[in-house]
Amino acid sequence: MSSRVLAADLLKHVGARVRVAGWVHRRRRLKSVTFVVVRDRSGFSQVVLRSGEAPPEETVVEVHATVTANPRAPGGVELTEPVVETVSEPALPPPFDLYRPAVTAALPTILDHASVALRHPALKARFALSAAAVRGFRSTLDALGFTETHTPKIVASATESGANVFGIDYFGRPAYLAQSPQFYKQALVGVFERVYEVGPVFRAEPHDTARHLAQYTSLDAELGFIRDHHDVMAVLREVLAGMAEAVSPFDVQVPEVPARIPEIHFADALKLVGAPADEPDLAPAHERALSEWARREHGSEFLFVTGYPMAKRPFYTHPDPARPEYSNSFDLLFRGLELVTGGQRLHRHEDYLAVLGAAAAEYRDYLAAFAHGMPPHGGFAIGLERWTARLLGVANVREVTLFPRDLHRLTP
Amino acid sequence: MSSRVLAADLLKHVGARVRVAGWVHRRRRLKSVTFVVVRDRSGFSQVVLRSGEAPPEETVVEVHATVTANPRAPGGVELTEPVVETVSEPALPPPFDLYRPAVTAALPTILDHASVALRHPALKARFALSAAAVRGFRSTLDALGFTETHTPKIVASATESGANVFGIDYFGRPAYLAQSPQFYKQALVGVFERVYEVGPVFRAEPHDTARHLAQYTSLDAELGFIRDHHDVMAVLREVLAGMAEAVSPFDVQVPEVPARIPEIHFADALKLVGAPADEPDLAPAHERALSEWARREHGSEFLFVTGYPMAKRPFYTHPDPARPEYSNSFDLLFRGLELVTGGQRLHRHEDYLAVLGAAAAEYRDYLAAFAHGMPPHGGFAIGLERWTARLLGVANVREVTLFPRDLHRLTP
Repeated sequence: MSSRVLAADLLKHVGARVRVAGWVHRRRRLKSVTFVVVRDRSGFSQVVLRSGEAPPEETVVEVHATVTANPRAPGGVELTEPVVETVSEPALPPPFDLYRPAVTAALPTILDHASVALRHPALKARFALSAAAVRGFRSTLDALGFTETHTPKIVASATESGANVFGIDYFGRPAYLAQSPQFYKQALVGVFERVYEVGPVFRAEPHDTARHLAQYTSLDAELGFIRDHHDVMAVLREVLAGMAEAVSPFDVQVPEVPARIPEIHFADALKLVGAPADEPDLAPAHERALSEWARREHGSEFLFVTGYPMAKRPFYTHPDPARPEYSNSFDLLFRGLELVTGGQRLHRHEDYLAVLGAAAAEYRDYLAAFAHGMPPHGGFAIGLERWTARLLGVANVREVTLFPRDLHRLTP
Repeated sequence: MSSRVLAADLLKHVGARVRVAGWVHRRRRLKSVTFVVVRDRSGFSQVVLRSGEAPPEETVVEVHATVTANPRAPGGVELTEPVVETVSEPALPPPFDLYRPAVTAALPTILDHASVALRHPALKARFALSAAAVRGFRSTLDALGFTETHTPKIVASATESGANVFGIDYFGRPAYLAQSPQFYKQALVGVFERVYEVGPVFRAEPHDTARHLAQYTSLDAELGFIRDHHDVMAVLREVLAGMAEAVSPFDVQVPEVPARIPEIHFADALKLVGAPADEPDLAPAHERALSEWARREHGSEFLFVTGYPMAKRPFYTHPDPARPEYSNSFDLLFRGLELVTGGQRLHRHEDYLAVLGAAAAEYRDYLAAFAHGMPPHGGFAIGLERWTARLLGVANVREVTLFPRDLHRLTP
């Protein structure tokens, strides 16, 4: 049996008999001929069928045919004198036409029928882009001496934030799904200095919004021996540049990552958007206004907002030594939305004991690393789906998640 | 402030004042001098302290000193005229001496104090090796046109195998932790043809053995347009070669992956080990005997056992068309243990309806992909911890898991 030729390689085989395999993407019946477009992972090939019936769309076929140059055919070749064999049964019609250039179905239809809907080339391409971005994340950090880790997703207590955790029956004992690898990545700074993890995180998010999921993919990094959060921001800048470069072959508006991403302190940000000085956080409208300001004033689609009030950050956040009501933390805004959260963490055991007080006993395992010597450290977490959604300009993170999970959706 | 120099780079700075930072790995007090070995992510540097007290082991320090060549010092240099600053508080003593070449603690001590114990260079190295192996897995599959995916870890039903699943409270509804990405990776063959995923899988494993964990890292791959399971085995062979090459810089006995891994049919394997012809599976002792045979007869540390009886494989397994009581499946034995399971899957919708019968309704979401045209396909799953354990020759998978989860262990 001749080996299979991919659609993208057909031009190299003009004049030869080849074997092509894929899905019937589209049938077009003309008077004396039927064009059958076959889709494979590399692209499309056009089969010229002069007799017989073409199988229905999405049927898997194998085609033995001659590669014939034809400048008017897509890709410059077509497959003539074909013998078409049906490999799957004739397929049921998909929930919407996968061959139309635009996706005509509404989001719930796409999500309910994901395993078929995702075959649409425009939907499928989103996930190839997402995979490339993750590759860029990893390769940048590998080059910077980071070690990849895999940490527990089942944890004994809901201590990290206390809210929005999923409970599990763990051999008859209560346990929880991890909301982030935060505690583990910090402990592992004590082992490897620089670590990252790409993995699922779980939020029992009771709100049904366009930017929240019950499970999403978090790109986490943490590093030791920093001076303050600016060293973390410098690594994040490299990571973003690596992720942007990785998606440059795709048909998206790839952002330019400035050599130095502009930065504004939280207190100045409030003034800039005209918010009261005692606001504890930025509203979505503020984030959009700040992003617009960074674009206008600095020509940057990225903006660091630093120094969020301690009151709004988790207990392990390191304060700004000069202004202890503010923190050594940051958010990164990208095209109007918060994309990354990060900052410096406390690293002295006594500082943890002071902020936790009587609750310290519940954090015994976490605190062990600090009692045994930890360097100043910090890190960040990028929400993969948010990054991909911003790049593609889609409004809902569900559109860039293969099989999303949320308040209402547990299948498929 | 001068930038930090890593221990591994000190030789390039002989004669200069430098800043080194890390953990006090060991203090050795002699009559007129104390040697302080500082550990960082690159290795060790020896500080020559002529006065003052060295901080206790595991304290984080910053050392400003002169790099002085000394052929008798480890690495050929030592740090003289040092100014040692303590960055963390003086550290509590670790649960066992981290500076001794051999790990002197028992496994439960290591696991109970993982965040400190893993700092031992011999333990830490295991996870650097594991990370390299995963890098080899991904880069091999990337080069073969596979797309990386992230699939749900929370699923609506325990349909894949029915047993050993963890239950979750999902917004008041029952749900389960995914035992594998099996159903999703098959559906995604319909989208991308070739997919892989590196991620956690969950087994409510009621047995407390050296080879089972409640959460482990599964390296999953699945590909379409195969002839039979031999095409899957050929890809697995490439993956193993890539993973072996990736760990070649490490101090382990890297296996040679033969161009063609030897293969024995299940029925012949039973004969070879002298087991009754109606045995439905291989016992661990059989696996060891078969591995030994492959080494002796074929000079290979790897052996494919193919054609396991259909009765012992999951419902989606493709039968051997010539001998339908046997399957187009395989296990890969490596150094006496099962390391990988894989095979060809059913791809016709009607075949699924036939094997599932009345239960088909429960599998509606899974079966949708097949009703809409699926190619012949198959795949495999490598247990990362088993692979690393075999490479390192350690007996228990917990020794190659950062923070293991099992029947008794939910912390740290």
